[in-house]
Amino acid sequence: MALHFTSEQRLDDGILERAFILGEIPGTLWTPASAAPVPLVLMAHNNGLPKSDPRLIARARHTAAAGYAVATIDAVGCGDRPRSAADEQVRAELRRAMRADEPVDEIFESLVGPLVEHAVPEWRTTLDALLELPEIGGPVGYSGWTALGIRLAVLEPRIAAVGFFAGGFVPRAQREQAPQVTVPLLFLLQWDDEGNPRQRALDLFDAFAAKEKTLHANLGGHLGTPWFELQDGARFFGRHLK
Amino acid sequence: MALHFTSEQRLDDGILERAFILGEIPGTLWTPASAAPVPLVLMAHNNGLPKSDPRLIARARHTAAAGYAVATIDAVGCGDRPRSAADEQVRAELRRAMRADEPVDEIFESLVGPLVEHAVPEWRTTLDALLELPEIGGPVGYSGWTALGIRLAVLEPRIAAVGFFAGGFVPRAQREQAPQVTVPLLFLLQWDDEGNPRQRALDLFDAFAAKEKTLHANLGGHLGTPWFELQDGARFFGRHLK
Repeated sequence: MALHFTSEQRLDDGILERAFILGEIPGTLWTPASAAPVPLVLMAHNNGLPKSDPRLIARARHTAAAGYAVATIDAVGCGDRPRSAADEQVRAELRRAMRADEPVDEIFESLVGPLVEHAVPEWRTTLDALLELPEIGGPVGYSGWTALGIRLAVLEPRIAAVGFFAGGFVPRAQREQAPQVTVPLLFLLQWDDEGNPRQRALDLFDAFAAKEKTLHANLGGHLGTPWFELQDGARFFGRHLK
Repeated sequence: MALHFTSEQRLDDGILERAFILGEIPGTLWTPASAAPVPLVLMAHNNGLPKSDPRLIARARHTAAAGYAVATIDAVGCGDRPRSAADEQVRAELRRAMRADEPVDEIFESLVGPLVEHAVPEWRTTLDALLELPEIGGPVGYSGWTALGIRLAVLEPRIAAVGFFAGGFVPRAQREQAPQVTVPLLFLLQWDDEGNPRQRALDLFDAFAAKEKTLHANLGGHLGTPWFELQDGARFFGRHLK
């Protein structure tokens, strides 16, 4: 299956931002102005937040400016793509439980678990297609959504380094796979993340089997990651993908 | 009191490394080749390890190469300076308890507590003298030994940013002062540090009142800090001292 570009714009810093479609999968690819093929970073937002999310776009543009091709997709059930009736029902149940201040772990489990399972083959298909492009070389890094990233890192020998954001629900199946993640890993934690228990994140960091693993924790809530972590993330990939 | 230089050598990368004496305090000062005055980093090793320690010297040289004056001293009872009979006795007791696998917290308390109290005025005297030198401007950062750094950061409004290494005993008095540390802070933790309980370090990080505080934790034991943390440390100071 080949990737079709549907629109493009050249940004101020020379980065080319292109929308693409791959079968039913819509995505965005950012590439820096470079004569030689560049490494690739797959970038996914927690729990399948849309690829149009401004924070994701800012992160992608910054990473591209550091010399990487960056790609993201809306996997099935994510972003602009239609949701199943079952999905809508779980999301409604989640909203209700949150308003009522009831425990939400099991609801998250039934929401995020299938989301990851359905997203994985689409991300792998996308990876295949991206690596066919002449402007993309390798190696491949992954950045963002922890649960998806664990699954991809375990399945995909092509992924050479991963940067995970701790602020998101990680289903049981992925928590259990953490000891199979062996590539270099940077784990980004917001110390006072309202919805994500700190101890659970520290336990997950402890469980990864990577020989090189680093935790960066910063003061503040879920959305408070300081800007310099963008630079640190690019330097982490610089050590492992360049 | 004025600082007297007793020897100097020019290193390959243009850094000037000078031994000095200030009253009874022996120290080392590293300065980069720079026409303009540079910021200062005070660098102390855990529990008063000697200024001649090769790891301290490597860290100081790297930091100087990033554009800082770096200074360290052997405070009273540290390094080459004579130890009191009481000190020798506590150290003997510590060795005995460690061999016997007995609890050592209270022994560390009676060793490191006075070490910090005696070191503080000498570091402040050194800071006064260093800031008189034309090649040193400001602001001032602090790097290394946590217990001394907490005490200095609380007492010294001239200290604008601190980088602490978690791997060392922090006496009760300094743990209690952690909520008074308000300058930007980078806390470096070795995840599997044999002699320093992880939870105690995480609790200390939690207690600091700095509005910007960052924890970097890396896999490995007490001596395993990866080389890239040297670069991260210099960038941390770059954000706050330049």
